[in-house]
Amino acid sequence: MISGWHQKASVLMEALPYIKKFYGKKIVIKYGGNAMVSQEYKDAIMQDIVLMKYVGMKPIVVHGGGPDISSMLSRVGKKSDFVNGLRITDEETMEIAQMVLVGKVNKEIVTLMNKHGARAVGLCGKDAGLIMAEKQLTEVDNGNGTEKMDIGLVGRVREVDTCILDVLTDNGFIPVIAPVGAGPGGQSYNINADYAAGAIAWAIKADKLVLITDVEGVMDSRNGQSRLLSSINREQAHRLIQEGVITGGMIPKVTCCLEALEKGVERIHIINGTVLHSLLLEIFTESGIGTMIEK
Amino acid sequence: MISGWHQKASVLMEALPYIKKFYGKKIVIKYGGNAMVSQEYKDAIMQDIVLMKYVGMKPIVVHGGGPDISSMLSRVGKKSDFVNGLRITDEETMEIAQMVLVGKVNKEIVTLMNKHGARAVGLCGKDAGLIMAEKQLTEVDNGNGTEKMDIGLVGRVREVDTCILDVLTDNGFIPVIAPVGAGPGGQSYNINADYAAGAIAWAIKADKLVLITDVEGVMDSRNGQSRLLSSINREQAHRLIQEGVITGGMIPKVTCCLEALEKGVERIHIINGTVLHSLLLEIFTESGIGTMIEK
Amino acid sequence: MISGWHQKASVLMEALPYIKKFYGKKIVIKYGGNAMVSQEYKDAIMQDIVLMKYVGMKPIVVHGGGPDISSMLSRVGKKSDFVNGLRITDEETMEIAQMVLVGKVNKEIVTLMNKHGARAVGLCGKDAGLIMAEKQLTEVDNGNGTEKMDIGLVGRVREVDTCILDVLTDNGFIPVIAPVGAGPGGQSYNINADYAAGAIAWAIKADKLVLITDVEGVMDSRNGQSRLLSSINREQAHRLIQEGVITGGMIPKVTCCLEALEKGVERIHIINGTVLHSLLLEIFTESGIGTMIEK
Amino acid sequence: MISGWHQKASVLMEALPYIKKFYGKKIVIKYGGNAMVSQEYKDAIMQDIVLMKYVGMKPIVVHGGGPDISSMLSRVGKKSDFVNGLRITDEETMEIAQMVLVGKVNKEIVTLMNKHGARAVGLCGKDAGLIMAEKQLTEVDNGNGTEKMDIGLVGRVREVDTCILDVLTDNGFIPVIAPVGAGPGGQSYNINADYAAGAIAWAIKADKLVLITDVEGVMDSRNGQSRLLSSINREQAHRLIQEGVITGGMIPKVTCCLEALEKGVERIHIINGTVLHSLLLEIFTESGIGTMIEK
Amino acid sequence: MISGWHQKASVLMEALPYIKKFYGKKIVIKYGGNAMVSQEYKDAIMQDIVLMKYVGMKPIVVHGGGPDISSMLSRVGKKSDFVNGLRITDEETMEIAQMVLVGKVNKEIVTLMNKHGARAVGLCGKDAGLIMAEKQLTEVDNGNGTEKMDIGLVGRVREVDTCILDVLTDNGFIPVIAPVGAGPGGQSYNINADYAAGAIAWAIKADKLVLITDVEGVMDSRNGQSRLLSSINREQAHRLIQEGVITGGMIPKVTCCLEALEKGVERIHIINGTVLHSLLLEIFTESGIGTMIEK
Amino acid sequence: MISGWHQKASVLMEALPYIKKFYGKKIVIKYGGNAMVSQEYKDAIMQDIVLMKYVGMKPIVVHGGGPDISSMLSRVGKKSDFVNGLRITDEETMEIAQMVLVGKVNKEIVTLMNKHGARAVGLCGKDAGLIMAEKQLTEVDNGNGTEKMDIGLVGRVREVDTCILDVLTDNGFIPVIAPVGAGPGGQSYNINADYAAGAIAWAIKADKLVLITDVEGVMDSRNGQSRLLSSINREQAHRLIQEGVITGGMIPKVTCCLEALEKGVERIHIINGTVLHSLLLEIFTESGIGTMIEK
Repeated sequence: MISGWHQKASVLMEALPYIKKFYGKKIVIKYGGNAMVSQEYKDAIMQDIVLMKYVGMKPIVVHGGGPDISSMLSRVGKKSDFVNGLRITDEETMEIAQMVLVGKVNKEIVTLMNKHGARAVGLCGKDAGLIMAEKQLTEVDNGNGTEKMDIGLVGRVREVDTCILDVLTDNGFIPVIAPVGAGPGGQSYNINADYAAGAIAWAIKADKLVLITDVEGVMDSRNGQSRLLSSINREQAHRLIQEGVITGGMIPKVTCCLEALEKGVERIHIINGTVLHSLLLEIFTESGIGTMIEK
Repeated sequence: MISGWHQKASVLMEALPYIKKFYGKKIVIKYGGNAMVSQEYKDAIMQDIVLMKYVGMKPIVVHGGGPDISSMLSRVGKKSDFVNGLRITDEETMEIAQMVLVGKVNKEIVTLMNKHGARAVGLCGKDAGLIMAEKQLTEVDNGNGTEKMDIGLVGRVREVDTCILDVLTDNGFIPVIAPVGAGPGGQSYNINADYAAGAIAWAIKADKLVLITDVEGVMDSRNGQSRLLSSINREQAHRLIQEGVITGGMIPKVTCCLEALEKGVERIHIINGTVLHSLLLEIFTESGIGTMIEK
Repeated sequence: MISGWHQKASVLMEALPYIKKFYGKKIVIKYGGNAMVSQEYKDAIMQDIVLMKYVGMKPIVVHGGGPDISSMLSRVGKKSDFVNGLRITDEETMEIAQMVLVGKVNKEIVTLMNKHGARAVGLCGKDAGLIMAEKQLTEVDNGNGTEKMDIGLVGRVREVDTCILDVLTDNGFIPVIAPVGAGPGGQSYNINADYAAGAIAWAIKADKLVLITDVEGVMDSRNGQSRLLSSINREQAHRLIQEGVITGGMIPKVTCCLEALEKGVERIHIINGTVLHSLLLEIFTESGIGTMIEK
Repeated sequence: MISGWHQKASVLMEALPYIKKFYGKKIVIKYGGNAMVSQEYKDAIMQDIVLMKYVGMKPIVVHGGGPDISSMLSRVGKKSDFVNGLRITDEETMEIAQMVLVGKVNKEIVTLMNKHGARAVGLCGKDAGLIMAEKQLTEVDNGNGTEKMDIGLVGRVREVDTCILDVLTDNGFIPVIAPVGAGPGGQSYNINADYAAGAIAWAIKADKLVLITDVEGVMDSRNGQSRLLSSINREQAHRLIQEGVITGGMIPKVTCCLEALEKGVERIHIINGTVLHSLLLEIFTESGIGTMIEK
Repeated sequence: MISGWHQKASVLMEALPYIKKFYGKKIVIKYGGNAMVSQEYKDAIMQDIVLMKYVGMKPIVVHGGGPDISSMLSRVGKKSDFVNGLRITDEETMEIAQMVLVGKVNKEIVTLMNKHGARAVGLCGKDAGLIMAEKQLTEVDNGNGTEKMDIGLVGRVREVDTCILDVLTDNGFIPVIAPVGAGPGGQSYNINADYAAGAIAWAIKADKLVLITDVEGVMDSRNGQSRLLSSINREQAHRLIQEGVITGGMIPKVTCCLEALEKGVERIHIINGTVLHSLLLEIFTESGIGTMIEK
Repeated sequence: MISGWHQKASVLMEALPYIKKFYGKKIVIKYGGNAMVSQEYKDAIMQDIVLMKYVGMKPIVVHGGGPDISSMLSRVGKKSDFVNGLRITDEETMEIAQMVLVGKVNKEIVTLMNKHGARAVGLCGKDAGLIMAEKQLTEVDNGNGTEKMDIGLVGRVREVDTCILDVLTDNGFIPVIAPVGAGPGGQSYNINADYAAGAIAWAIKADKLVLITDVEGVMDSRNGQSRLLSSINREQAHRLIQEGVITGGMIPKVTCCLEALEKGVERIHIINGTVLHSLLLEIFTESGIGTMIEK
């Protein structure tokens, strides 16, 4: 039993320097829809965030919700077309997406976090002018070259007003943000959650951005075996994309990280939300568990 | 033109004593779904609330959204049964109701208010533990007398934690609240918006509760002509219900007001949201425009 | 009656953007002795200032009092000589002028404002070192050219210490200032109220300076009919003086405005205090009522 | 020279316990018009008050000005009748009195104090609602007994609003108050400065009230020689009046003190303003210099 | 490795409820001289306290130093006599004791804690009037019964002025206190560190008092085997003393705890400082490691 | 007696400008061990510092203690060797020196100051990281020139963290500092108190540094008679050293002053602590009593 005690104590001691290091720091956590796989995993993520709050950090959560949106769209018999992997978003689709993100997914996260002892407050980008958005066109090949295509109410962040985030974090609340922004006339825009999290991270000068996904991190599968890359810098990331080591859905994710680094975010972590307490371990232990991308 | 000036000046002068009177006061406004009849009327209500904010009051909005819920339910092919005018609310119905109230109606109000120059923040009762709810049974006649009947996830307010409201109003934000509460295990409950507004009004010690409906106020139709009652007290309200002067949907509304008065709210106004700027006129002019109920 | 309501509401709505615009802004109002013509007009000005205070502005009043000084001087049998329209001010004259400005006119304004619900505090430039003054010579023609002439205790502003104004406005008081300054040895100097108001306006970085006079504004009487100029800029003002359009007592007033604009005051209004609520209408309506001079 | 040093040091050391004792304490000083006998004496009083401010006390000055009022009245050819030693005060007399007190005496004191390094702010009872007054009748013998007689605008304190005093002293200013109060309709009332000082002393819960007069204190002339009474309590004061030891103008002064003690002022000093630095010596030395009256 | 991660995460998760529970709470830790056995153990205690600080608690340390005092006394060739286990303390002994406690032991603890990332400030009871002490007599048997005996400068706490502790903990410092108090004339008194810690704990309304000793806690050795009592209440403690279960040096320690409980301290822990991180484990784990005494 | 009063008043009046001048200013006082000659002199210094505090200054005391260290070293039979007048300080010597400075001298000063009504808090450079030190070598002549010699734990200031000083002075405490610093690994270093005071003076941007010694100041003994130099500047000081006017122990003292002036301290006073209240007289009177060195 003494040995059990020793182990417990040494884990807490291992956490101490990280607690000191991040005391009072703002950390943006993007919680992707694909990482919300079971109640147990969700609970673990929420506990991790609540712990971060109690040891003095200021966590801010941005969440996705793609699977829930798709499921609700099919429930109302609405079909979607996709271009470049982006859903063509007409007004009806946007209305459904907003209801799901803001009225369902966001409140599930808020409720769960409050159950674990935090005081979370759900927001979307339309509250208090948090995220001003603008239409984002996508490039498509028209046979003669590429042209910009309008795919509806898909937006990108034009401006972030951090006022409400400062008020909430300074008063001990955890903001939980659904990635819906307001266009100039008040129209809703669906924004990619990774990019929304990145934009918020640099607007509030966050010390860290953590992307919780459903993969272990950036993998290197060359040489016949899959190996997690614990830490890469910007140059390496660019090269790994060019060399085809980073592939598929990891490409836009890493591209988003590179853009956030460009704008001033210091350090970004990609971790696996389907490993219990991966967030905690990434923050509080020496070895970490996913991939860190930094300048 | 001078005469036009005189009139303008005298209107502003008429407002001055009310501005002085309500300076720094908290006013809860319940904006009923039935009163959201056109963009013009919605705009007028929002402008009124923004003006209240700028002349020093602290408005807090609680909204309904019945018509939108019904429309979405029918869109997903979900039928509802009613008991005592209350919708039997299973989990699927609750999920839809929450998505509509929190993800659609709430954000419409927030967006509109921000368009008119405010900084509104949408909340539901699950954010920051704002509204703790519990199941509300309804009484039905089973032939041998009345019995309590479980109609699902219909709740009443058990407790209000005003902390988030204080933080937001003290920092110049206007809270806009969807009447969804959290049960003990985190389950959502649909709460009647009038009652939610009443509970919040006394929890924050509001100086006034205003119910914006689609009727002019409490009417007295005896003696062959319909007459608006500008002001009634508790006793009169009780008697008017007993004497059958107050009828139909006005009965639960007045009953809700009586309960709020009982708990300490000083003054409640029932006004017609389908008259342009009725809210403004009720607050800032001598004659008022609806019915005031007070102790 | 509904139409009466509509009108009232639309007046309040017309005021809303101006309320938003001037929220928290400092506005210096110079209330000239000639504009204090009747109790009714004085009351109207005071109500306007109190309303400005309640909708979030920070008004600061500087007043004149020439007619009252003249009347008191004649009461004690003291005659005055004038040079360039400036009273030759010996010590006895200064003593009387100060007693009238500080002990009579100032307290009348303070009392009236408090009657209308404000908390006004009377000051002169000697309180808390508010206005440091120095002797102002005037140029006279001696036959062989101009020379500077000493006309006694007539001063100009050397320095403004805004500390007491900040403390008073931050605590909800309205400062009311008599234009008497302190010379280096503590001697009183009589300062032109327009210039005192201008100096205070730029010292506190006011958003607006309003001069309440007894004329409608800057008039253009060319072409056989008198026309109010609603808005002129600096260049136009200079040209209008050169072209002889601006004449008489309006010349020093406009010159004072030009000097204040030079020093950084953004916008100056000249309005007619003998039109009821002209101040209110100038601030809160679209058309305005007097002349605005800006860069 | 060393011995000179020792003396200096021992004076400063003698002051130390008094500095400690009064640190942060509010002290009301009534500076009577009769004590303003020469520039040298005025300077000494002002220096004393400035020193009190710098060693951490919060002095508040209330002044008189009878001689100056009389002189101005005669200058405008206005005669006064007196009843019970009180001037019958019609509107014209009140107007002159206010101009002299507020516009002349008050500003002289303020200017002098600022010259010695303080930041003094002149007020009268009409500023910020400081002194609410009401008419004071006087009792006269009509042959058949006494009756109340109306002697015009002579008032007594009905209420003191200390708000402006708190704001000024908390921000390091020294308030200097002319004893003119506002009646219910805004009419000015002349108030006896001793009584005004007493009312302000208990309203702000002052630790001390000091009356600066032109006599040494309460004298006992029995037994053929005049002896200063250094300290008397309430009972003794009553008895000394009854026994005819306290006589003449000292009777109303001591009566005023007794009333102030009754209402809660702890300690009142009567000192001689025509002794240089008497205020300083009364506060900072062991022996004191005038008469202290306490419970 | 995943299993290692799981363990780490579960330890941190086990700590979470305790972190929440003690957030912002004041905890007094008495670090006994006998528990300062090696650098490794001292380091572990310091790390534990620093961690407590970083997770939001407000630790206050009171230390002993008996062994170091004895060693220094022998170094200067000073012999001590003991009565009832208390050292007879003449002035020379007191001087040496103070130099060792304040100038050696206290600074060692402060230095060590700062090395681990805290900002510790050493105090003794004489700083800022923290501990007012008075002479404590001891009862001795004189053959005919007991009598009070004067054993010199051994004191007990008469009064605690918590002002300096509040200022330090509110600004993020950890106070470290040597148990030397000031008598009425400024004379130093040596105070038993357990009692000093108890007095400080109730003076600052601490949520917990932890006594770090060199034994495991309160043991029950009846029935032939030694068993740690994890938790006892006041009644049980009294009975265990009476029944002779609690013996030797544990009697005064438990008596001190009972006195502290009497005065309002809620919960006292006796733990073994010679087990690594015992403090951490007592606070942050479910089972605890020593004996808790509570009401 | 009146004449006695006049003198008292004039002393207080002479102090007024100095009180105004130093209001809120930080003043570092180095109290040398040699100046602690009798209880009477110590008391006088303490009273002076307490008076400084009460008239609004922020005194910070740094003390020496050489004689007490020597006496304790001899008590434990420890002999010291000196190089360049510096004690070779091995670990045992350092341990004794720290116990004496921190545990004896510092607490004597704190206790005495508190007796006179202050709230003093004793610190050494190891508390809250106040003084980071590093080894200081001394130059010795090895026959072939000079070489650096290691004389043990004698240090110089590497860095001052003023945080604890700001917190204490802002809350009304007087910090009293023993000149022991912490080396990189936590090892104690003995620092010359003059230099420690100088380093602290410029780190907190003190307005004045006062060195209390046992001589009158800088003397000029040329021309056959000893004359105190009331004020010298940097150039003069350098020249006086070169010319051999400044000699003996005054050389390092003046050198320390010159270094402090170089780093930004504005004004340094060297005064004689064996003259009663010399500190007070230097600060509060026109003539001063010692030598002022300034740029």
